[in-house]
Amino acid sequence: MPSPELLAKLGELSDLRHAGLLLMWDQQVTMPPAGAAARGPVMGTLETLAHDRLIAPELGALLDAEGDGDGDDPQIVRAVRRERDIACRVPSELATEMALAGSEGFATWLRAREANDYSIFEPALRRNVELARRYAGCFPDNEHPYDALLDRFEPSMTAAQVSALFMRLRGGLVPLLAEIAEQPAPAPLSGIFPTDAQREFGLQIVRVMGFEDSAWRLDDAVHPFAASPSLADVRVTSRFEEHSLIGLFALMHEVGHGLYERNIDPALARTTLDTGVSLGVHESQSRLWENLVGRSEPFWSFWLPKLRERMPETLGGIELHDFLRAINAVSPTLIRVEADELTYCLHVIVRFELELALIEGTLDTADLPRAWAAKMQELLGIDVPDDLQGVLQDVHWSEGIIGYFPTYAIGNVLAAQLWSRLRADLPNLDDDLRRGDPSELLTWLKDTIHRHGCRLTPAELIEQAVGGPLDPDPMLAHLSAKYRALYGLPA
Amino acid sequence: MPSPELLAKLGELSDLRHAGLLLMWDQQVTMPPAGAAARGPVMGTLETLAHDRLIAPELGALLDAEGDGDGDDPQIVRAVRRERDIACRVPSELATEMALAGSEGFATWLRAREANDYSIFEPALRRNVELARRYAGCFPDNEHPYDALLDRFEPSMTAAQVSALFMRLRGGLVPLLAEIAEQPAPAPLSGIFPTDAQREFGLQIVRVMGFEDSAWRLDDAVHPFAASPSLADVRVTSRFEEHSLIGLFALMHEVGHGLYERNIDPALARTTLDTGVSLGVHESQSRLWENLVGRSEPFWSFWLPKLRERMPETLGGIELHDFLRAINAVSPTLIRVEADELTYCLHVIVRFELELALIEGTLDTADLPRAWAAKMQELLGIDVPDDLQGVLQDVHWSEGIIGYFPTYAIGNVLAAQLWSRLRADLPNLDDDLRRGDPSELLTWLKDTIHRHGCRLTPAELIEQAVGGPLDPDPMLAHLSAKYRALYGLPA
Repeated sequence: MPSPELLAKLGELSDLRHAGLLLMWDQQVTMPPAGAAARGPVMGTLETLAHDRLIAPELGALLDAEGDGDGDDPQIVRAVRRERDIACRVPSELATEMALAGSEGFATWLRAREANDYSIFEPALRRNVELARRYAGCFPDNEHPYDALLDRFEPSMTAAQVSALFMRLRGGLVPLLAEIAEQPAPAPLSGIFPTDAQREFGLQIVRVMGFEDSAWRLDDAVHPFAASPSLADVRVTSRFEEHSLIGLFALMHEVGHGLYERNIDPALARTTLDTGVSLGVHESQSRLWENLVGRSEPFWSFWLPKLRERMPETLGGIELHDFLRAINAVSPTLIRVEADELTYCLHVIVRFELELALIEGTLDTADLPRAWAAKMQELLGIDVPDDLQGVLQDVHWSEGIIGYFPTYAIGNVLAAQLWSRLRADLPNLDDDLRRGDPSELLTWLKDTIHRHGCRLTPAELIEQAVGGPLDPDPMLAHLSAKYRALYGLPA
Repeated sequence: MPSPELLAKLGELSDLRHAGLLLMWDQQVTMPPAGAAARGPVMGTLETLAHDRLIAPELGALLDAEGDGDGDDPQIVRAVRRERDIACRVPSELATEMALAGSEGFATWLRAREANDYSIFEPALRRNVELARRYAGCFPDNEHPYDALLDRFEPSMTAAQVSALFMRLRGGLVPLLAEIAEQPAPAPLSGIFPTDAQREFGLQIVRVMGFEDSAWRLDDAVHPFAASPSLADVRVTSRFEEHSLIGLFALMHEVGHGLYERNIDPALARTTLDTGVSLGVHESQSRLWENLVGRSEPFWSFWLPKLRERMPETLGGIELHDFLRAINAVSPTLIRVEADELTYCLHVIVRFELELALIEGTLDTADLPRAWAAKMQELLGIDVPDDLQGVLQDVHWSEGIIGYFPTYAIGNVLAAQLWSRLRADLPNLDDDLRRGDPSELLTWLKDTIHRHGCRLTPAELIEQAVGGPLDPDPMLAHLSAKYRALYGLPA
């Protein structure tokens, strides 16, 4: 293990981050609205203090004293050193400017949404793009300026790798979507699904997944998310709506994130390595539970009878086959967060390609709505009627978060790779799910992914888990097989 | 106003404290139980960082640069300087040792309560007393070692002042209690008071007092408390029980605390002066609403009909006079937090006299249960059957909090002084309360107490508010008049 002095410094850094996480959770879940104005500075102070401690020469000296980290847990030193090196490259003034522009951008974005008018938001976005380019400029050795932005969320992944990956996704998804579009749409679920019953049913499902009442909580949030102030304090949120079951899938998604954090090796607590290693890997966990488990036939063959009992009026007569068709219906939508399993990645690709052009300087922010509309037409075949259903829908860019979107698709891709691998290791998985028992699956994920925290790099973790790098083929194969069967297309 | 540099430092300090406050609130209200172990270090780190910043030479230099503080707001400099001077007198090792002993003491106290055995707790208390004496030793100029301990909660108040005040309280309360004890006890309220109805009714009351849904929240807590992470984010708690209405009074009490913080001059936000000036003054606000408003005839002449409507089965037939007798019944109890308005201060005096003896060294912790029993017999005339209903009942000493108890009685005394003064200023107050309208009262309290935050010292604030120092006579007169009327004793 690193020296006690180094561990003490990492403990403080970790404590500041965990406090910040709790403040963020509180802001979205429990804070009275009038508390918002005063909350910003408090969160800003915690971030600044954490950043100051990360770049402090004292921490550098303690890391240097560890040498090549040939002690018990050299990964701790390696991971902290990497994070510190990056933080030290960015001038404090720039970091502060970015934080400020992000918080102002968010406020401007809210106003622009109110007016459904991108032109209100455009100057703020222009500023965020400019700052992102300055940030990228701090890393002149990178192949592409986008690499530095992506690295904040998906360490060591490059724009070139994402482009190559997405090119193959496009190639597989777009033709499949075209085929499906010619088939009759499945009948949607309709009627009232009482939110209390959904919440209770959702809790019943996630308790089997690993949600323990003593260490977890479930709350409502407008935009569902998960946050873990510590490894034994996991908070998930969902949004249950009485006209749809989408909140159930959102809950399984967030519990997938929560399980990752909950099962990290406790020895990593307060080392700053006690968190998911990248957003893509995190998303692989949430998507795996939401889609590969939660929209599958074996899963619902166990749970549908129970759901029917809870909601006899709306679901009493539904057949498993029709239920599965309804929850897996494919239909291009304008809004990313409402997208189905197949079209979701296309939304991500739209954003990635636009981000890349903004950062390269080949697209001006003034032209963004037009470019957005063209991409939506090209990839999803739909028209964008206004800014609210187009370029103003996502919060990310308003806060200066550029380089984040690709991680959503990386998560889907990795989830399918993991699924393919774990099905080979767990030949009885379908039977287990038909009995409502995902415990072997959870054990596999704990052992393969969760426990490592940030000890392995994302690339090492993926290599070790699936025996190779990111590969879109398992996802394309999964989607093709699933949707061809559901829509009665030739295999 | 102080220099921008000084204000920036105070802003950071303030942010750290507000974050700590939110973590404390979360720990008691929302945190899953398994999160407890990891929460301690996070709160400890925030406290240490705040303490380090308070004693840092940079802050000292910025305060020195303000000179005699002849700027716009010299009270800010004065208040921070005082707090810093005290913090600088205490060696960091001692502060750390006290924090650690407090947290271990709390755990030991829980175990001792489990076993109903003081001897388990005794070594931890011995250690806390010893540390408190070492803390007091850092202030050798004080008249009495207890002064330094009291000062942490009631700045500039001395043991001698508290002793003199409490002597007069004893003199007035003990004979009155003896007279009442000979009268027949009023019939208690009985039946089921549904907790949901109590909560709704309580909210109806406190919304009229000033609880705004946009800036406040109400939650359940085992030990009700109030906490304000910022001036527009006020969190109160209560505990509603179906066999009693005590949760309603606890709610009014906590909202009294909340109103104080909510109405501090917003210009004091992030200066560290945006909080109540002392625990005694804070308690005057909670007690005023709980007892002087909340147990009065004018108040219930408006609210009782509404409560009867909500709980027709239990309260449908009750007369105002009988209701008032029931909620004001005097009966010596073993447990402080269950005490009535008259005997409450006697519980405080028991604890103060024991604390004083422990700190002076004339009482050994090994003899505490015997001394406790003797004092309870002397002041309240009752026998203490076991440790749980005696010396193990309060959490304070377990955490090393010595010098705090007097502030409860100071609050009661000051509340009566304020009440006496404001009744002269607001001749229509009883009529207002009979119409359910406490707005003039709130305006008076805002103007006289709340807005000042820590700009005035407690002594200055009290002098300005009531035209003199703390004085027990208004409280003794109030209690005598009230209880003689309720119990049919000669005036």
